[in-house]
Amino acid sequence: MHTMTLDHAKKIVAACEVKAHEIGIPMVISVVDEGANLVLQERMDGAMIAGITLAQDKAYTAAATGFDTHQIAPLVQPGKIAYGLAGMDRGRLVVFPGGLTLKSGDKTIGAVGVAGGMADQDQEVAQAGRKAL
Amino acid sequence: MHTMTLDHAKKIVAACEVKAHEIGIPMVISVVDEGANLVLQERMDGAMIAGITLAQDKAYTAAATGFDTHQIAPLVQPGKIAYGLAGMDRGRLVVFPGGLTLKSGDKTIGAVGVAGGMADQDQEVAQAGRKAL
Amino acid sequence: MHTMTLDHAKKIVAACEVKAHEIGIPMVISVVDEGANLVLQERMDGAMIAGITLAQDKAYTAAATGFDTHQIAPLVQPGKIAYGLAGMDRGRLVVFPGGLTLKSGDKTIGAVGVAGGMADQDQEVAQAGRKAL
Amino acid sequence: MHTMTLDHAKKIVAACEVKAHEIGIPMVISVVDEGANLVLQERMDGAMIAGITLAQDKAYTAAATGFDTHQIAPLVQPGKIAYGLAGMDRGRLVVFPGGLTLKSGDKTIGAVGVAGGMADQDQEVAQAGRKAL
Repeated sequence: MHTMTLDHAKKIVAACEVKAHEIGIPMVISVVDEGANLVLQERMDGAMIAGITLAQDKAYTAAATGFDTHQIAPLVQPGKIAYGLAGMDRGRLVVFPGGLTLKSGDKTIGAVGVAGGMADQDQEVAQAGRKAL
Repeated sequence: MHTMTLDHAKKIVAACEVKAHEIGIPMVISVVDEGANLVLQERMDGAMIAGITLAQDKAYTAAATGFDTHQIAPLVQPGKIAYGLAGMDRGRLVVFPGGLTLKSGDKTIGAVGVAGGMADQDQEVAQAGRKAL
Repeated sequence: MHTMTLDHAKKIVAACEVKAHEIGIPMVISVVDEGANLVLQERMDGAMIAGITLAQDKAYTAAATGFDTHQIAPLVQPGKIAYGLAGMDRGRLVVFPGGLTLKSGDKTIGAVGVAGGMADQDQEVAQAGRKAL
Repeated sequence: MHTMTLDHAKKIVAACEVKAHEIGIPMVISVVDEGANLVLQERMDGAMIAGITLAQDKAYTAAATGFDTHQIAPLVQPGKIAYGLAGMDRGRLVVFPGGLTLKSGDKTIGAVGVAGGMADQDQEVAQAGRKAL
């Protein structure tokens, strides 16, 4: 797989949805391509409205930086080198778990972002999506 | 059907996708609920990047005004009473075809928005989605 | 009356609400003060969601320019001197009916903005609010 | 009560206003519906201008996440799992007291947001609004 297609995105989102059902929390799930542009987003019934933007921004952040969002967290704490990064890039950079890059070899070909539960639950759901690729 | 669910949205988007394939132009398709909040959005492979926002804003406009976007067009022409409406509401109001309300009786329960082709093609794809409901 | 108070705003909004009920269309009604800052806003049950921003922006435009929004309309038509004004000021300038200045003598002390119906209906409701002052 | 109506919102805001008078600090009070869209907002005479957006964003945050804003505070401290959440979702997520969900059983049907005093005073006023429902 070398580029993100809608078919790939559907598989990723479907796997996320299964995991979210398993956890029992409705989620919003987003997949973006290597240009960090949205390919597919779905909001499960009852998922929090704030997740609409958060899931998309998590996927954006991962694709646009090449880092998983949880990898960014330690760098932005008070006193650390990237303190103040949260919310930069027109409010879109997310620095807590739930956004994972999707790679083909070393190349970032897209990302998946999940929001709706506690950040560690979002992360678990996003990992199910990554595994499906 | 009284509220928009993810299952309804999936049916609507699937019908739009079939019609877009038939026309031969990749589209972005969005479905929002009665609060004008996004439920499902997909970008077909090769669909224009600008469609990501346009499809969502078309769906937003229809749900947030209760009018199909093509119905708004005549009212906003130069010299007409609502000239200047285009792009209001923080840049989200779209005044050309491709956004259709989804109703249950008199009540707007959501909307579908399509972008990617000429406005009349977008409209045709959106109509296929509405019919699927 | 020399400054806009919450009591004044409540009277204005109440008068608008009566007129909107009379017309039979639910409206969003906003009142701002001389600083063009929101004092009171209400959305009648069933009023369109897009009216939330539009009513506020109409009131903002009137207070922030000193003109009723319908007075601005002729100046912004294609070929006219202020063509392109619509949507300027971070998307807030509205150039169609429904925003009226509220004056004490020559001084603008606030404005009322109404959205939810056709622009001429919005205007009629706003006028009922102005008269109540 | 299953959905937020303007009448409900008026009762909530009136109760908040009484409490704010009791405390002796003018406040801005906002009520949103289950779609996190504004129903009613009022600014008491002399309330700080920044409260206009803050009250609305507190109500938005509670309705859009399903959590009271003070419940979010511990999760977003430096080193915690959701550090960086403050100001996400296009600048709207508030993580300090003053935004309370309004529920019917388990379902969030709206929220009230208050700003104008110290955060604990805002919270006290918001609680008076919640009790009025």
